[in-house]
Amino acid sequence: MDAISVRPARIQDVAAAAGVSVSTVSNVLNRPERVNARTAERVRDAVAALDYVPHPGAAGLRTGHSSSIGLVLPDVANSFYSRIARGAADAAYEHGYSLVLCDSGDAPEREQGYFTMLIEQRAVGAVVVPLSADPTRLSRLRERGIPLVLADRAMPAQEGCSVSVDDIAGGRIAVQHLLDRGARDVLVVNGERTIRQCADRYQGARQAVRTRREARLGQVVAEEMTVAYGSEIAHSLDELPDGVFCTNDFLAAGLCRALGERGVKVPEDVQVVGYGDLDIASFVGTTLTTVRQPVEELGRAAVEMLLDEVEARAEHAHEARVFAPGLVLRDSTRASSDAPF
Amino acid sequence: MDAISVRPARIQDVAAAAGVSVSTVSNVLNRPERVNARTAERVRDAVAALDYVPHPGAAGLRTGHSSSIGLVLPDVANSFYSRIARGAADAAYEHGYSLVLCDSGDAPEREQGYFTMLIEQRAVGAVVVPLSADPTRLSRLRERGIPLVLADRAMPAQEGCSVSVDDIAGGRIAVQHLLDRGARDVLVVNGERTIRQCADRYQGARQAVRTRREARLGQVVAEEMTVAYGSEIAHSLDELPDGVFCTNDFLAAGLCRALGERGVKVPEDVQVVGYGDLDIASFVGTTLTTVRQPVEELGRAAVEMLLDEVEARAEHAHEARVFAPGLVLRDSTRASSDAPF
Repeated sequence: MDAISVRPARIQDVAAAAGVSVSTVSNVLNRPERVNARTAERVRDAVAALDYVPHPGAAGLRTGHSSSIGLVLPDVANSFYSRIARGAADAAYEHGYSLVLCDSGDAPEREQGYFTMLIEQRAVGAVVVPLSADPTRLSRLRERGIPLVLADRAMPAQEGCSVSVDDIAGGRIAVQHLLDRGARDVLVVNGERTIRQCADRYQGARQAVRTRREARLGQVVAEEMTVAYGSEIAHSLDELPDGVFCTNDFLAAGLCRALGERGVKVPEDVQVVGYGDLDIASFVGTTLTTVRQPVEELGRAAVEMLLDEVEARAEHAHEARVFAPGLVLRDSTRASSDAPF
Repeated sequence: MDAISVRPARIQDVAAAAGVSVSTVSNVLNRPERVNARTAERVRDAVAALDYVPHPGAAGLRTGHSSSIGLVLPDVANSFYSRIARGAADAAYEHGYSLVLCDSGDAPEREQGYFTMLIEQRAVGAVVVPLSADPTRLSRLRERGIPLVLADRAMPAQEGCSVSVDDIAGGRIAVQHLLDRGARDVLVVNGERTIRQCADRYQGARQAVRTRREARLGQVVAEEMTVAYGSEIAHSLDELPDGVFCTNDFLAAGLCRALGERGVKVPEDVQVVGYGDLDIASFVGTTLTTVRQPVEELGRAAVEMLLDEVEARAEHAHEARVFAPGLVLRDSTRASSDAPF
């Protein structure tokens, strides 16, 4: 403890001095019944020694004022977003904030309506998961003047915090895996190139192929990234590749089923990698090797970065945190010992 | 308009008098920029004529006080609950309330923590989706003194409002369908009987079988309602039934796959009906005939009943609203023309 410190003590300083987590400090201040007496005493000693004044959020919680964070997302019934919501809800709870669920249905006017609501309710900030990349829409949001963290979308750090998953790396590891397991003629079944994630995943696929002189890469764009389109594409192919990278699991599920209907064996004839590790990846006839994104971590990190901005203020530095995706090995690609090379 | 009405005008009266929806009235009062000028004028005239004073919630929204509803559920990343959340979010938005997402992880102490938070933030009430039926836990919640609507759990109407789906009817239509399509030896693959939904679905199955003298009903209880257990049960059966009713789609998906591995054809040899209409129902090798529950409607109705309690107060009558499930026909049962009877 530095008794002559000039800046006001922060909750993190109290936690460090008492040797406990920030959420324990928050509990002592807000829900003391949930902390054992000895720990609570240690925290209160640290609060006194550091002359710590709770941040406006914690104070608000105690006095009944709003101490909430908005979570604006396109559709909570979509499992990708609901997993972000779970991570965000956990982090908000641990820090003593409530999380206001703002399901925009991806309608810009409803997104705006939610921002008006969050401002009126004096939310301390918002985590926003935008679906489309319309920059004017995002800047309109930032102009409303409450701290904002973008989730699932990287943003230049000078404009604010963001958390996202590295889709280029995701595309690269997916196709690298196909090449490692012996595929040489790889087809990417992609969504529209205007979707940033799709463009990035394809770019990653190209990076992987460039490392192998004998490998070829093709691309087919599906109108919608659904099981039905995956199936349609599999039926429409004249020449079969020996490896397919579908940029989401719905496309991959439809493609695998339709290949089966054509008498094509997965992974013996064609190896398939999906993207997203959705529930369906492990339910389809041939379970899918796929790219897993750390989705809960995205939601959690977004809330924690927002709270750092809210609580640390002047000391806060914006950050564009990018998470690495990983590969989940299942039956739609060959075991490494089966690879012919 | 009844000028000598003695009770104070409600937002519903204003809406009726102006010939608009309740949410339009709410918008005129709270977000006038979103309503066209002519409609807004008509609403303001009705407000003046009826001497309408906005309810505390709407007033709170305008003045920056909390006007929020808590949504307490066990796991927002589970698609059943996230669909309830979407319905609840839509209804809350339309009525000008924010929805505070309280993901309890089904931990009683965290559920209590959320209730403390909702009380501190002066939430107008809460919609609670309890996972386990522990009555002391539910009564502890009600004792906290804020209006409460239970979702996915019927409650005696004198104790409060609730919304649920009729699981007995769901079990009945599932097995009725198997019988209609020619099955006579029906097996119920169920979860633990202590789960209320499982007990109800089995009861419905028994009701259906009782209507047919020549039909038989058996039951196997899975330790967990997962794909893995569905598969294990299918592999363990010595004698095959000609119809199987799985009380959720995970069990059905695992069962169908394992039957295929045994060389048993679905629906030719064994017809299968699932429950829940989860995403996987339409992705598995043989798509599942299954029972669909109106889940979004559950969330929406719960919020609207809560707001009726909050806004109408003395006039509010508790209600246990029960929704009817429906059957979705897919490939795991025979087309009606294939039925041998």
